[in-house]
Amino acid sequence: MDKGLFIVFEGPEGSGKTTILKTVEKYLKELGLGFVTTREPGGISISEQIREVILNKDNVAMDGRTEALLYAAARRQHLVEKVIPALEQGKIVLCDRFVDSSLAYQGYARGLGMENVMKVNEFAINDYMPDLTILFDLDPEIGLKRIAENKDREVNRLDLEGLNFHRKVREAYHILAEKYKERIRVIDAGKVLEEVIADVNNIIYNFLLSKGYIE
Amino acid sequence: MDKGLFIVFEGPEGSGKTTILKTVEKYLKELGLGFVTTREPGGISISEQIREVILNKDNVAMDGRTEALLYAAARRQHLVEKVIPALEQGKIVLCDRFVDSSLAYQGYARGLGMENVMKVNEFAINDYMPDLTILFDLDPEIGLKRIAENKDREVNRLDLEGLNFHRKVREAYHILAEKYKERIRVIDAGKVLEEVIADVNNIIYNFLLSKGYIE
Repeated sequence: MDKGLFIVFEGPEGSGKTTILKTVEKYLKELGLGFVTTREPGGISISEQIREVILNKDNVAMDGRTEALLYAAARRQHLVEKVIPALEQGKIVLCDRFVDSSLAYQGYARGLGMENVMKVNEFAINDYMPDLTILFDLDPEIGLKRIAENKDREVNRLDLEGLNFHRKVREAYHILAEKYKERIRVIDAGKVLEEVIADVNNIIYNFLLSKGYIE
Repeated sequence: MDKGLFIVFEGPEGSGKTTILKTVEKYLKELGLGFVTTREPGGISISEQIREVILNKDNVAMDGRTEALLYAAARRQHLVEKVIPALEQGKIVLCDRFVDSSLAYQGYARGLGMENVMKVNEFAINDYMPDLTILFDLDPEIGLKRIAENKDREVNRLDLEGLNFHRKVREAYHILAEKYKERIRVIDAGKVLEEVIADVNNIIYNFLLSKGYIE
């Protein structure tokens, strides 16, 4: 049985992840490779229902650990209903954020502990770790400035956290990149867009080559 | 600071748990001790919302691990909002079911693995294990018969599982009683009600004595 490839894009808001995902889609299309692009909760009904509980603004009493468990539950269902079936069809799955986001934002920046959050997520993902993670590394001051300048983008709850919180997120991503060297490739998202795109395409190209997807 | 006592009742449906909980309440009242009786989701709004997702009959695609994570999330919030505050007021908390139920029903009988389910629940409860667990041990054939005879009781989803499932639940409870000897007291719930009540009161009396709650 052919198994697809699970490629995840990680990094802070304002790092250009979403824009560059679209250029990667175009690139894969040119190469004639089958792929699916997604992000949690990915239109999965059960995951959307869970997300509603997380985002319900009346739920001010929500404990950090409750929130982490709910994110893991939504992730599990999205994985089972969308990611795994696509991988089993031999497709490349491009996913905007996955486990590392929970480790960085909730485990490290919110202080729940990366190892604690990992245990819960290990249960949720049951060995389905990404084959490749591209980490968009960016000075949070630049990221926050980009977000503020982008009038089309809706500001979310995490954007409103202070600079110190976003510095911790970046620190956490660096720790993860060091820990999972074989899986995570770090790119400098502070460069001009064309250069970032070239870096990402280069990583993807070499990765597909190493996996025998292209010659 | 005085810390209360966390007493949990475990065992299958039809074992008399709920009936006997009421006699224990009466007993604690006579002793003049402050207590709270509860069961998950315990009227906690966030936990009720999570329970709605679990029980929503349209959610047929729900994965077993998603379900376990949602139960753990609901447990966390009930613990934080109801159990811990009562314990911090020095009260005795009587709770109908807790972590062991997830280990027995989902971990063992549903086959997710008790250790796997425990990891998720350790994150959820963060060291708040019961001080005492009274396990109502009963032959599942008797339990199912009692449920069938009780016309007032609404039949739930787990009641409808076959005998084999309930045998596994009992087996799991036995494993847990062996593993957590210092915490779990097993009583024979197949005896006549008066004898079971006497056994439970005896356990509670000795426990309160050992903890210096009574003299």
